[in-house]
Amino acid sequence: MDDITTNKDFSKILNSLCSPNSYKKVMHRSNHNVPMPSTKIMGQIVEMMRAIIFPGYFGYSHLNLHNMKYYLGTVLDKIYHQLALQIKRGFCFSCNHNKTVCTDCTNRAINLTDSFFKQIPQIRHLLSTDVEAAYLGDPAARNPGETIFSYPSIYTLLNYRVAHELFKLEIPLIPRIITEMAHSKTGVDIHPGAQIDEYFFMDHCTGIVIGETCIIGKNVRIYQGVTLGAKSFPLDENGNPIKGIIRHPQVEDEVIIYSGATILGRVTIGKNSVIGGNVWLTRDVAPGSRIMQEKPRKMNFENGAGI
Amino acid sequence: MDDITTNKDFSKILNSLCSPNSYKKVMHRSNHNVPMPSTKIMGQIVEMMRAIIFPGYFGYSHLNLHNMKYYLGTVLDKIYHQLALQIKRGFCFSCNHNKTVCTDCTNRAINLTDSFFKQIPQIRHLLSTDVEAAYLGDPAARNPGETIFSYPSIYTLLNYRVAHELFKLEIPLIPRIITEMAHSKTGVDIHPGAQIDEYFFMDHCTGIVIGETCIIGKNVRIYQGVTLGAKSFPLDENGNPIKGIIRHPQVEDEVIIYSGATILGRVTIGKNSVIGGNVWLTRDVAPGSRIMQEKPRKMNFENGAGI
Amino acid sequence: MDDITTNKDFSKILNSLCSPNSYKKVMHRSNHNVPMPSTKIMGQIVEMMRAIIFPGYFGYSHLNLHNMKYYLGTVLDKIYHQLALQIKRGFCFSCNHNKTVCTDCTNRAINLTDSFFKQIPQIRHLLSTDVEAAYLGDPAARNPGETIFSYPSIYTLLNYRVAHELFKLEIPLIPRIITEMAHSKTGVDIHPGAQIDEYFFMDHCTGIVIGETCIIGKNVRIYQGVTLGAKSFPLDENGNPIKGIIRHPQVEDEVIIYSGATILGRVTIGKNSVIGGNVWLTRDVAPGSRIMQEKPRKMNFENGAGI
Amino acid sequence: MDDITTNKDFSKILNSLCSPNSYKKVMHRSNHNVPMPSTKIMGQIVEMMRAIIFPGYFGYSHLNLHNMKYYLGTVLDKIYHQLALQIKRGFCFSCNHNKTVCTDCTNRAINLTDSFFKQIPQIRHLLSTDVEAAYLGDPAARNPGETIFSYPSIYTLLNYRVAHELFKLEIPLIPRIITEMAHSKTGVDIHPGAQIDEYFFMDHCTGIVIGETCIIGKNVRIYQGVTLGAKSFPLDENGNPIKGIIRHPQVEDEVIIYSGATILGRVTIGKNSVIGGNVWLTRDVAPGSRIMQEKPRKMNFENGAGI
Amino acid sequence: MDDITTNKDFSKILNSLCSPNSYKKVMHRSNHNVPMPSTKIMGQIVEMMRAIIFPGYFGYSHLNLHNMKYYLGTVLDKIYHQLALQIKRGFCFSCNHNKTVCTDCTNRAINLTDSFFKQIPQIRHLLSTDVEAAYLGDPAARNPGETIFSYPSIYTLLNYRVAHELFKLEIPLIPRIITEMAHSKTGVDIHPGAQIDEYFFMDHCTGIVIGETCIIGKNVRIYQGVTLGAKSFPLDENGNPIKGIIRHPQVEDEVIIYSGATILGRVTIGKNSVIGGNVWLTRDVAPGSRIMQEKPRKMNFENGAGI
Amino acid sequence: MDDITTNKDFSKILNSLCSPNSYKKVMHRSNHNVPMPSTKIMGQIVEMMRAIIFPGYFGYSHLNLHNMKYYLGTVLDKIYHQLALQIKRGFCFSCNHNKTVCTDCTNRAINLTDSFFKQIPQIRHLLSTDVEAAYLGDPAARNPGETIFSYPSIYTLLNYRVAHELFKLEIPLIPRIITEMAHSKTGVDIHPGAQIDEYFFMDHCTGIVIGETCIIGKNVRIYQGVTLGAKSFPLDENGNPIKGIIRHPQVEDEVIIYSGATILGRVTIGKNSVIGGNVWLTRDVAPGSRIMQEKPRKMNFENGAGI
Repeated sequence: MDDITTNKDFSKILNSLCSPNSYKKVMHRSNHNVPMPSTKIMGQIVEMMRAIIFPGYFGYSHLNLHNMKYYLGTVLDKIYHQLALQIKRGFCFSCNHNKTVCTDCTNRAINLTDSFFKQIPQIRHLLSTDVEAAYLGDPAARNPGETIFSYPSIYTLLNYRVAHELFKLEIPLIPRIITEMAHSKTGVDIHPGAQIDEYFFMDHCTGIVIGETCIIGKNVRIYQGVTLGAKSFPLDENGNPIKGIIRHPQVEDEVIIYSGATILGRVTIGKNSVIGGNVWLTRDVAPGSRIMQEKPRKMNFENGAGI
Repeated sequence: MDDITTNKDFSKILNSLCSPNSYKKVMHRSNHNVPMPSTKIMGQIVEMMRAIIFPGYFGYSHLNLHNMKYYLGTVLDKIYHQLALQIKRGFCFSCNHNKTVCTDCTNRAINLTDSFFKQIPQIRHLLSTDVEAAYLGDPAARNPGETIFSYPSIYTLLNYRVAHELFKLEIPLIPRIITEMAHSKTGVDIHPGAQIDEYFFMDHCTGIVIGETCIIGKNVRIYQGVTLGAKSFPLDENGNPIKGIIRHPQVEDEVIIYSGATILGRVTIGKNSVIGGNVWLTRDVAPGSRIMQEKPRKMNFENGAGI
Repeated sequence: MDDITTNKDFSKILNSLCSPNSYKKVMHRSNHNVPMPSTKIMGQIVEMMRAIIFPGYFGYSHLNLHNMKYYLGTVLDKIYHQLALQIKRGFCFSCNHNKTVCTDCTNRAINLTDSFFKQIPQIRHLLSTDVEAAYLGDPAARNPGETIFSYPSIYTLLNYRVAHELFKLEIPLIPRIITEMAHSKTGVDIHPGAQIDEYFFMDHCTGIVIGETCIIGKNVRIYQGVTLGAKSFPLDENGNPIKGIIRHPQVEDEVIIYSGATILGRVTIGKNSVIGGNVWLTRDVAPGSRIMQEKPRKMNFENGAGI
Repeated sequence: MDDITTNKDFSKILNSLCSPNSYKKVMHRSNHNVPMPSTKIMGQIVEMMRAIIFPGYFGYSHLNLHNMKYYLGTVLDKIYHQLALQIKRGFCFSCNHNKTVCTDCTNRAINLTDSFFKQIPQIRHLLSTDVEAAYLGDPAARNPGETIFSYPSIYTLLNYRVAHELFKLEIPLIPRIITEMAHSKTGVDIHPGAQIDEYFFMDHCTGIVIGETCIIGKNVRIYQGVTLGAKSFPLDENGNPIKGIIRHPQVEDEVIIYSGATILGRVTIGKNSVIGGNVWLTRDVAPGSRIMQEKPRKMNFENGAGI
Repeated sequence: MDDITTNKDFSKILNSLCSPNSYKKVMHRSNHNVPMPSTKIMGQIVEMMRAIIFPGYFGYSHLNLHNMKYYLGTVLDKIYHQLALQIKRGFCFSCNHNKTVCTDCTNRAINLTDSFFKQIPQIRHLLSTDVEAAYLGDPAARNPGETIFSYPSIYTLLNYRVAHELFKLEIPLIPRIITEMAHSKTGVDIHPGAQIDEYFFMDHCTGIVIGETCIIGKNVRIYQGVTLGAKSFPLDENGNPIKGIIRHPQVEDEVIIYSGATILGRVTIGKNSVIGGNVWLTRDVAPGSRIMQEKPRKMNFENGAGI
Repeated sequence: MDDITTNKDFSKILNSLCSPNSYKKVMHRSNHNVPMPSTKIMGQIVEMMRAIIFPGYFGYSHLNLHNMKYYLGTVLDKIYHQLALQIKRGFCFSCNHNKTVCTDCTNRAINLTDSFFKQIPQIRHLLSTDVEAAYLGDPAARNPGETIFSYPSIYTLLNYRVAHELFKLEIPLIPRIITEMAHSKTGVDIHPGAQIDEYFFMDHCTGIVIGETCIIGKNVRIYQGVTLGAKSFPLDENGNPIKGIIRHPQVEDEVIIYSGATILGRVTIGKNSVIGGNVWLTRDVAPGSRIMQEKPRKMNFENGAGI
């Protein structure tokens, strides 16, 4: 390809892309030149969190009881500085879009990082219950450590539980980036606003969706392709969706939801219920219920070659 | 593991792998030693396109109105050279497999890169409508910028809209690589041949499939797990599938399709229709229709422990 | 962010994370300081396997008939050393969790690597049938090489077929890591224990789940979102799931299963059957059957704005 | 090495290293937590300068007259932001050490970066004369381009000429880092304060030293191992060397100094002089002089085996 | 540094740098867009040569007699393709500068790479004599392997011996790049044109210079800072140095030259001679001579504080 | 270069390189497959040492008094594991070459790492005196921190002082690798066996050589190009140099040696002496002496064009 010279329409194309009409809706211009949060750094922060929460499984491979304190201290300190910087960037991005004045983003970021840090031991506690749930919930799991090291459920829940604490502190953008990272890797889309209690397990994971205002109790187990979504959402007078309305299911303790089930709207799935696969559900279910799809028909297909 | 020496059956295994019987169906040998397209470079090209389409969100973090022209000009120029080279490699791969004579691959690659470049402003325009659709279509979105920066729908559509323009130019392999990159990241498999009009939004994304001959109108919204697929495909006299037959749905303007719905074959979903979740559909739907699954039964499960 | 000093509760948080109560269930401590297997190295091993199985498509871009033997010999040798080391780490991890004495992990690892190596030519053979199945099974495929280079089905099956051979040798953890890598990339979760015969094709891939004790015959084709799972699993007297029970479907030769179908438990899908999309199936199906979902209803939705 | 546990004296050693007595003279603590300049970023800045000064030789390999402006504009902009940040860090480091109040480091850094930028065209002009001098000064040079691309003289002079402009602006630390980078690579130690006129050439380079207050005229050529150093330096009443005294040679136009010559103190080497190799010189030399070492003796060595 | 905007003189500076007057002498524009040779790739080629010449010391750490052939075959093949490409680039660069028509650069490059390859076994042979010379020449060397692995003499000579073979084939630019890489690392500047026979050793290395037309016999040992240079060079009628004149010393077998000695011009240092340190020599030396510097004086320095 | 096929003499060349005659003197084959020490890891170990010795200047950029202990503890622990492994590799390399039985390399490595660790605080102390010497010895130094961060003297001495402690423990190969790293970067070749007391400073550095059995007192300052070398070395009956003989100078306290001076053999430079530049010295010098080179002659050169 040695003989490529520049495209002859190059200037015209470039001018078009640099005209305000073209860029105005798709260009980011901050108030004061703070760049966007770095997804690369965010990824490193989350991996450092994984090394903190599950020492010896992730991070330093020579971890032992003697060096644990030094290592965790160092990693925590790095998370602290890097997370505070990213949170600040998230604020500036948000201020910019909301056309509000962006004052004191740095201090707010530091204070919220302080608040988040207090939750780290509790995040580990919750994840330790999730590990137990994964081990008990999957006959193929040989030991709890295997679920920590290689199960997408635990991977996703670490991201979610970190993101949820940041979300509760009303930190913009950052929580979403964190859950979206897990979404990309495991196919599970948990909104950071969802509330999920202890001992939660998702088997196989791909395609699970858990919406912003979901509430999920203790000891719940769900399978791949389950949607806990919104049935509809009202628009305001300008045709924009009204933000922040409670619109997703509440799932009580001890519920199992099988693969592909879709549960929409603020309905309650009562304690101890079992929801069968591929079910479409938009109403409350009493505690202890068993819900499943109609039987499929046996039939002749129309085409010989396929379905 | 210091004491590993070489496997004693090593030569035998290697000889077996190097015998023509073993490699003939799985080895790539080009006509004239042009290597396969580089997926790594293709990935860089797509990320450069993202920096061109959404300046300030991706790419150079210090972008402003003063340096935009220089930066976009530089990145466009890099895309130009790298893309032309990859397109050429795609041609050579294809020529090789089709046992045709591969002449003038370089010039064809350059000319098609020229043609593709003219479409970049329009690609940005379409994506700006997709951004608006994402913002309006998801109550959890705080501002349009958030959807540009972190929504899998926008991520996927950039890959698709770039790949589609390359597909229209009958460039082999490259468009597929580009959409497969998004498929791997977001779980959305859009064939580059599909035709998708403006203001398209996919919520949650995972598991969506949109086939090669689909036509999708303006302002369509679909949810995770939706399949717009083929019902069956005819075989030729040798038992090979006949390529290029129109076999996927046409979805008209303003349609919403909820999660897990499967629509197969060249059926038309009329304007303004709503298709419910988990529906299996193989026939036309009139404009304005509302289609949904049978109600699930309440029932007793057979096993005490689970479903 | 220049003025961040250390969080004032830092010591307290760190002490909490370093207390045995906090870490005991989530920390990995090996018997003799062997680190966890490296997922990074495992990824490199699998990519080297891809270069061995599909020479010219992956790995060295200047591969030809003259240098093939040198190149494959070199890569095989690298795989040998690196894989044996990772297998040893897997043993040590496993010994640790089973509280067994870990003797001779190194020799066992080497012997099993020897055994695995003998299967590589057969792994390539099976994958070459999968390539043919992908080409014949997808009208959008232009040639078999395209499926090798860019289809998630082939990508996933290479990981699975390698992992399955390791699983048969009763190597712990490593097979699971390998299939989970494909799961993360393609959204297909095949347990390494599943038995899949030749000419297997998965179209679109995302959301497919194939359980540990599945048996799949020749020439089977399945679509995105298909689950071949367990219906339930018995618990032992302590409430732990009993491991190793046969609990997943057997799919006979020439079966097609369309997108979103869920088949649970040790049922048999008879030869030549076709299972329609979104079906929920927990019983045997006779050979040659055609099974599909109930027709969806046409209905009025409750809300004007959405479903 | 799997059985290494932690060193038993570990805590004692660590405590020793963390005691103020141990760290007080070797630890860097800034006034307000600004980190040290990044040598990695400084290296990138200098390489970007090389791409600006010698376009097509360094940096973008597809540079041509059409894309030059975009490319140079982009790289200049990147240099601008990165250099300003490093200059600021240099100020903060310096303020810290001088125990002065560090106010307005950011604005000073930006203003000085502005001033430096105005000199870039002149830096290129001077380097273009150096290229000509290298080509004319070395019979082994096949063309001027070869000296740009591979001669240590040009490599070193780019670093020096950039550093010198920064030094003239009284920017601390950064100029020294830049010349030290070249010192490490080519073995030439030019203090950024030295004043070197146009058409300067150093052949072979290794071991050349040019001190802070040297003045070198036009068209001077020097060889490896030449020192233009200080003869001595006075101490103040505390025994510290007095900084900033003029103490290095002045070399007038058209002078040649051969390898290993050492010229010390504020002496003047008159125009058109030639200084022979290995000479030790601490006094003025009149214009047009030819100075060389005493003839070596022919002699018997004391030892049979060597000297 | 969030508040940096673009430099206000930016356009003016950029325009200046983009004016033909500014760039004409310092910009590289090729005849047909072939980029400059890649120093990064050249570095990889040389490291691969090191792994070929000294197997087990460099390159693959699991090398043994079983896998050696595969490994060396693979690396040789990689060198072949990469080196041919770089040689071609060197030709195109040279054609460009010489304003000659650049035809058939590719084929010439391939043919010369073929020729070079035939010399690789001999290059290894010569280097094995250099290893022995290093071991015998340095009392601090514990074994020959240590000199291979860590002595700058061997490092430099590998680069030189490779470059010299390429130089003999009249390949432009590439040989110089290779020796300059060693120059930068070890401080030894050997022109690729120099002819150096077997069993050559340089102790400490830094500052050694060996000119283009030097001839060095067998079993020669030289120390740091030795120059074998040109005394002067004649100019042509245009004031340009005449290229290709024989102008450097000839050093016969078994000579030792101590540190800092400077020998200039086409003089002959007779067999078995010893040249003392810091000597300046511009005339022939008979075989068996011992030459050394005048005795230094004992004296009073002029300044109290220093020399 | 798409049309390169494999070199036609390829097999012949490869066979030649794989014949025992060719490889026997240049191939490394260990007793038990332990690879060579990794120069990459050694480089990381030394950089970690730099971060330990000079906290805040190197390593973690957010170091402060609160996190210092965690950070230093973590880095020390990493050095411990990595260094012990490299020391073991050094033993195995050495055993192999000495044809001794290599038993207990691992334990020896660990014990010696333990011993080395006890010296780290003292290494820091010595380097803190070197920092002071550099600041006082160079009028161009603005503050001590600048010498830590950017002076080649301090860079080199850290490598030397670490290597010297390892050398004293009779660890093979590793010390030499460490000093050679500094040699490559700064041009100073200090043998790890040399003994150098506190407050040592080398200005400009390039070309300094300090031999294995040198002894250097307190407060010594030397300049670029100084050699403290061996005059000759006796051979044993087989013509091999006798290893370990005392053969390098002893330099007493408060001595200054100017650039290019060469001092050879076990001579003593008495306290407070000053040795002038370019001097060649092979005899003792009484305390308080001032030694310098003969005056250069003023003369006519033979050639008009040059020297």
